[in-house]
Amino acid sequence: MTSRDGYSWTKASGLKQGVPSIGVISPSTNVSSAESKYDVIVIGAGYCGLTAARNAAIEGLRVLLLEGRDRIGGRSWSSNIGDYPFEMGGTWVHWGQANVWREIARYQMTNELVNSFDFSKGVNHFEFDTAQGDATMNHEQEDELMASALGKFFNVDGSFGRKIMPLPHDTFKTEKAVDLDKLSALDRINQISHSLTLDERAALESFILLCSGGTLETMSFHEMMHWWAMCGYTYQGCLDYLITWKFRGGQSSFAIKFFNEALATKRLSYAFDSPIKSVKDTGNNVTVTTRDGQQYQADRLISTVPLNVLEALSFDPPLPIGKQSAISIGHVNQCVKVHAEIPDKDLRSWTGVTYPHNKLFYAIGDGTTPAGNTHIVAFGGKFNHMNAEENVEDTLGAVKGLFAPENNNGRSPDVARLVFHNWSRDEFSKGAWFFPPPGLLANHLEAMRSRHGNILFANSDWAVGWRSFIDGAIQEGCRAAFEVRTELQAQRSGDMPHS
Amino acid sequence: MTSRDGYSWTKASGLKQGVPSIGVISPSTNVSSAESKYDVIVIGAGYCGLTAARNAAIEGLRVLLLEGRDRIGGRSWSSNIGDYPFEMGGTWVHWGQANVWREIARYQMTNELVNSFDFSKGVNHFEFDTAQGDATMNHEQEDELMASALGKFFNVDGSFGRKIMPLPHDTFKTEKAVDLDKLSALDRINQISHSLTLDERAALESFILLCSGGTLETMSFHEMMHWWAMCGYTYQGCLDYLITWKFRGGQSSFAIKFFNEALATKRLSYAFDSPIKSVKDTGNNVTVTTRDGQQYQADRLISTVPLNVLEALSFDPPLPIGKQSAISIGHVNQCVKVHAEIPDKDLRSWTGVTYPHNKLFYAIGDGTTPAGNTHIVAFGGKFNHMNAEENVEDTLGAVKGLFAPENNNGRSPDVARLVFHNWSRDEFSKGAWFFPPPGLLANHLEAMRSRHGNILFANSDWAVGWRSFIDGAIQEGCRAAFEVRTELQAQRSGDMPHS
Repeated sequence: MTSRDGYSWTKASGLKQGVPSIGVISPSTNVSSAESKYDVIVIGAGYCGLTAARNAAIEGLRVLLLEGRDRIGGRSWSSNIGDYPFEMGGTWVHWGQANVWREIARYQMTNELVNSFDFSKGVNHFEFDTAQGDATMNHEQEDELMASALGKFFNVDGSFGRKIMPLPHDTFKTEKAVDLDKLSALDRINQISHSLTLDERAALESFILLCSGGTLETMSFHEMMHWWAMCGYTYQGCLDYLITWKFRGGQSSFAIKFFNEALATKRLSYAFDSPIKSVKDTGNNVTVTTRDGQQYQADRLISTVPLNVLEALSFDPPLPIGKQSAISIGHVNQCVKVHAEIPDKDLRSWTGVTYPHNKLFYAIGDGTTPAGNTHIVAFGGKFNHMNAEENVEDTLGAVKGLFAPENNNGRSPDVARLVFHNWSRDEFSKGAWFFPPPGLLANHLEAMRSRHGNILFANSDWAVGWRSFIDGAIQEGCRAAFEVRTELQAQRSGDMPHS
Repeated sequence: MTSRDGYSWTKASGLKQGVPSIGVISPSTNVSSAESKYDVIVIGAGYCGLTAARNAAIEGLRVLLLEGRDRIGGRSWSSNIGDYPFEMGGTWVHWGQANVWREIARYQMTNELVNSFDFSKGVNHFEFDTAQGDATMNHEQEDELMASALGKFFNVDGSFGRKIMPLPHDTFKTEKAVDLDKLSALDRINQISHSLTLDERAALESFILLCSGGTLETMSFHEMMHWWAMCGYTYQGCLDYLITWKFRGGQSSFAIKFFNEALATKRLSYAFDSPIKSVKDTGNNVTVTTRDGQQYQADRLISTVPLNVLEALSFDPPLPIGKQSAISIGHVNQCVKVHAEIPDKDLRSWTGVTYPHNKLFYAIGDGTTPAGNTHIVAFGGKFNHMNAEENVEDTLGAVKGLFAPENNNGRSPDVARLVFHNWSRDEFSKGAWFFPPPGLLANHLEAMRSRHGNILFANSDWAVGWRSFIDGAIQEGCRAAFEVRTELQAQRSGDMPHS
């Protein structure tokens, strides 16, 4: 099946909107007109919504899952082109991520991980192209440079953040950590710039911009420290957790397990292609109205709509001020992720930073396609932002700009294929994974997490722990479904929920 | 409530069997004589059995949970003496442990962790008492010594094990890793002994004996490497994962959540004080007979009986040869864990190794009791084994032997209280957490994990991933309940389970 989402380009076919994915659901709905009231409606079929719907269904509730897109996965989905998965959004997982790994183990997929990196053959170097010029170094040198730069950035307490943020799931536990959310990444860089070499500064900036998809001025230092803490306070941990292990069959091969398990209970109704317009909670009943006027009712609603999209929905009664404030601030991640298939197998062991001059500033060899080409994944963001579908020549130029001919045996690589999803112009995401500006978390995290009458808000955007990650999405979906099920169970049996 | 399990000693009261715990269940059964056949019977109310029973119950099955003891928790439970939790068995958890952390997050207990270590006041040193004599060093020196020793031990591939065991949940993936299971820890030490200082060797041996509860000759090097890989291939990771974060309210405050959630579904029947004698599977029906002659029937059985205890049960039809072989080999962990309350608050920041001469060879300051005393937790094992209840003077001597007077301002500490559980003489555990001899995993892991007709075998002893840990127990319980529920669901609706 082909999704409306995503773009691909080849010389032969030019730019095409829509790419094939095993995450497209057909038929797009199984709702019969006879349905009356559900126990719970879940808005959104990303990992958070899938988890919420699945858990509620397997725990006995009648569930309706509504999704604006034609596919599951939200901001994490894979396209299958020539039987090879390109990850359009969220990609990497790790056994140290509790919620996603629990599911991977449960679905017996622990042996389906592959390593994005393969340094066993080919050029086997790191290309570092900055205002100081082009250079190549080996990957050990790359790691040393990054580790040194990040170590200086995060060492606010003489313990690389372990003292100031000892529990990464409770990041505001120490007062000093609260203060970190007043700083942007640039503020922190200014504190330590005297101790950074020019190479370290370029390495540091490119790495943290990769993480935030924002700009140095608009990204919270606290949240960047939170990522570092989650990764075990080391650069090696960042590599392991953030960019190493992915699914052999792509994210959609994982997401579909949740959907199929829910469907097998025969308690899951669903409707794709069903964007939501409004939500009304009368106190006894929640009514959801789609853009095309369909109405559905339930005892509870779980909204998994991302922060940047919530303003598009109307709520009656209106959302509380705290939540409205968070929505009006929004998050800053406008990551640009572009896959390029390059007919040069030697680039499999290539990694590169081209910063700050190139619109794609961080990239790695991510796989070998069935055609034997190297698959490069490259990242840009709000800094030097581009809409990759607008001018393909520019996008091709940004890909080629990753490789200085003098560093690659005089070659400027050919590009056989591009694949990408423009998350910035996607009305159901309005950006990539959550990354907050300074102050948003310190002031509004609780407001983002809180429920509003019979409406629960679950999204990786305000997860504790692996916030912004697939793990956080699953955690939030689990949290919401647990709350709804125990609440309804207690109501119906006349008991209070057991704590 | 007071459990029959465990021992406590004070000068005033002497040795007493049985300690109070919030994990004791009263009434001990809710089974009415009217019960007929269950969907599933779960044997064992440790974390594995609790998870299996809870998941099955919340997913709609009628469950009977049978347990030989008077309490939940199996090899992980906490006693509450003077409102302070002493962890009798499994203690520490970490957010990088997927299954246990998923549950901690789900029960909103992420903020209930406390750090076993507190180096903020007191003696703040590591006491290292070996054949080379007594010495003290600061904790940074302790960490350097341990990191250096362990680094040499595990660096079999120039990458500290990352190449030979890249995926810690799939430890036999590389052929070279299979070979590691032919080695005992002593075999590996002999390979590198030329490169170890005497201090490093003593540090290494005491640390890995702490992990295995066995002897250097009988513990598998492969499994020790597996622990190291799970901990991120660093000593810091070992500290973080293995011995840092515990529950403020004790393990039983966590385990009771599983039990209460299952109970609230009204689909959980249970009977404590009900040791099992035999199991018969007719193909359509599993019958469980208790020692006192009670019989229960179900469609499926989940046995969470540990490896070392399985020989006490009779199975009809008999267990397959592979499983029988594994059972006859057994695991080697005979850990001795002794808590001592010492009226010296300065020892809160103390850690120590007394090896090989003392029966308790590894210990740390683990807390401050309500009386203001330091709580020391000390470990021994099969090497130089003792039964701590047999001769309390010897046990007190082993505790006092942790502290050389010359290292502690001339003081030999007073001991106000001892608390412990003798896992070696416990008929329902016959040892502590699983630790295999060489060959057991390479030859029998699949046999241990496999089902036998309608009987599923789930236990942390043969978990992939955090085998031997609470995490592995939860993972296994989840695996078994998932298999049973999807199977029965498919049978009853006439469908095949969705994959």
